[in-house]
Amino acid sequence: MKAHIEDTSIVFIGAGNLATNLASALYHAGFGIAQVYSRTQESAQLLANKVSTKCTTDLHGVTKQADLYIVSLTDSALMQLLPAIVAGKPNALLVHTAGSVSIDVWKGHANRYGVLYPMQTFSKQREVDFGKVPFFIEATTEKDTTLLKAIASTLSEHVYVATSEQRQNLHLSAVFANNFTNHMYALSAELLKKHHLPFDVMLPLIDETARKAHQVEPHSAQTGPAVRYDEEIINKHLSMLCDTPDTQQLYELISKSIFHHKQ
Amino acid sequence: MKAHIEDTSIVFIGAGNLATNLASALYHAGFGIAQVYSRTQESAQLLANKVSTKCTTDLHGVTKQADLYIVSLTDSALMQLLPAIVAGKPNALLVHTAGSVSIDVWKGHANRYGVLYPMQTFSKQREVDFGKVPFFIEATTEKDTTLLKAIASTLSEHVYVATSEQRQNLHLSAVFANNFTNHMYALSAELLKKHHLPFDVMLPLIDETARKAHQVEPHSAQTGPAVRYDEEIINKHLSMLCDTPDTQQLYELISKSIFHHKQ
Repeated sequence: MKAHIEDTSIVFIGAGNLATNLASALYHAGFGIAQVYSRTQESAQLLANKVSTKCTTDLHGVTKQADLYIVSLTDSALMQLLPAIVAGKPNALLVHTAGSVSIDVWKGHANRYGVLYPMQTFSKQREVDFGKVPFFIEATTEKDTTLLKAIASTLSEHVYVATSEQRQNLHLSAVFANNFTNHMYALSAELLKKHHLPFDVMLPLIDETARKAHQVEPHSAQTGPAVRYDEEIINKHLSMLCDTPDTQQLYELISKSIFHHKQ
Repeated sequence: MKAHIEDTSIVFIGAGNLATNLASALYHAGFGIAQVYSRTQESAQLLANKVSTKCTTDLHGVTKQADLYIVSLTDSALMQLLPAIVAGKPNALLVHTAGSVSIDVWKGHANRYGVLYPMQTFSKQREVDFGKVPFFIEATTEKDTTLLKAIASTLSEHVYVATSEQRQNLHLSAVFANNFTNHMYALSAELLKKHHLPFDVMLPLIDETARKAHQVEPHSAQTGPAVRYDEEIINKHLSMLCDTPDTQQLYELISKSIFHHKQ
């Protein structure tokens, strides 16, 4: 490890939502970002500007001198580009940031490798405060585990070592807690829009639902017609959804699932 | 209207989660709660103690002298008890608090009636801050509308007049934003528990998902495998859920719905 952890030079491969947020946070924490690669010039340049570095759209043009390569691509792009990513970097540590991908994806390709998974939802419009974001890290040696821990700890108080299997279960759980939850918001917003009602009125309820999860186990916190299986209300709601059969089917299935989980 | 709105004497019919939170809030705002009715002695006494009043478990023992009766019962109990509730109170204002029930439920039974619907999720363990809770009110005369508005305004800055149809659509939308969202949390918690992972690590993600809804339209904020229809991850997740076929079916249906809403 360097005398100062911030002296670790980092290259970002990918400039999507996660890479943008993570690179900016590391940059502001004092790390030097040596370079940014993205398939498209616009994304590469945008992120490079944010972290005062140079960029490339050519994987073969990526510097071979960095200490750490943080690869943040879609799972399929990662698989496809892996040989070009690892080429000529026998001593560097290479990590991906995907919840869903095993550490073994690197096996046989790289000498030093691992995973750095910040479990959060990222968008380019919102800057995420990493202080409370849990990081799940994995490496093949104690030295690399320590290095990744030290880097993540400059951003967050919540850094854990997790196996690929644990991380994949965390990722699946996060799909429910984030993507599916957000879709419930989207369906709610769609219904309100259809009836010319503002989505803003729903925000205090959304906030309280999230706050309650800090205090009461979600399973015990359940209220509403489904947990009582109040057929009169459920049937009325189903009839109100008759012009959107997909949403109607979702309403019915989720209501049944709520009721079955009660028992 | 009384010289001071807080001089309006209020009886609560029902002592469930909503009644408990609303009665306490009105009591702390300076209103006198004249009496509490509940079917069970324990609930009736518990709420009566909180708001320094007397209670009864006999509907015929409810005082006939109050100005306002706030009826907070399950929809079916409301229907069943309605004749006994209205009996002997020709001059009082009677309101229910249900999102799903039309104002017309009172028609032909009471002279002065309406609805006072605070759109929030209530539990007895958590005291809700009413300041941001939207209230939707409805009455048959301008005088009663003004009275309900004035009462709700002592608790919240967000008081709206809404028709029964609007309120029913708000309630249906709230089922998605609250009950169904909470079920996504519960399924996430269940998965984590099965793999001996703590639910606490999910809270920063849950909080950010809710916060993001304040700033980005949920439909545009969607991320994750479903919105890209990343079949490799989706199929892997489905196989990880193979021992809980109901949850597996939900995962598939919600993922398809996310993808279809993108188009």
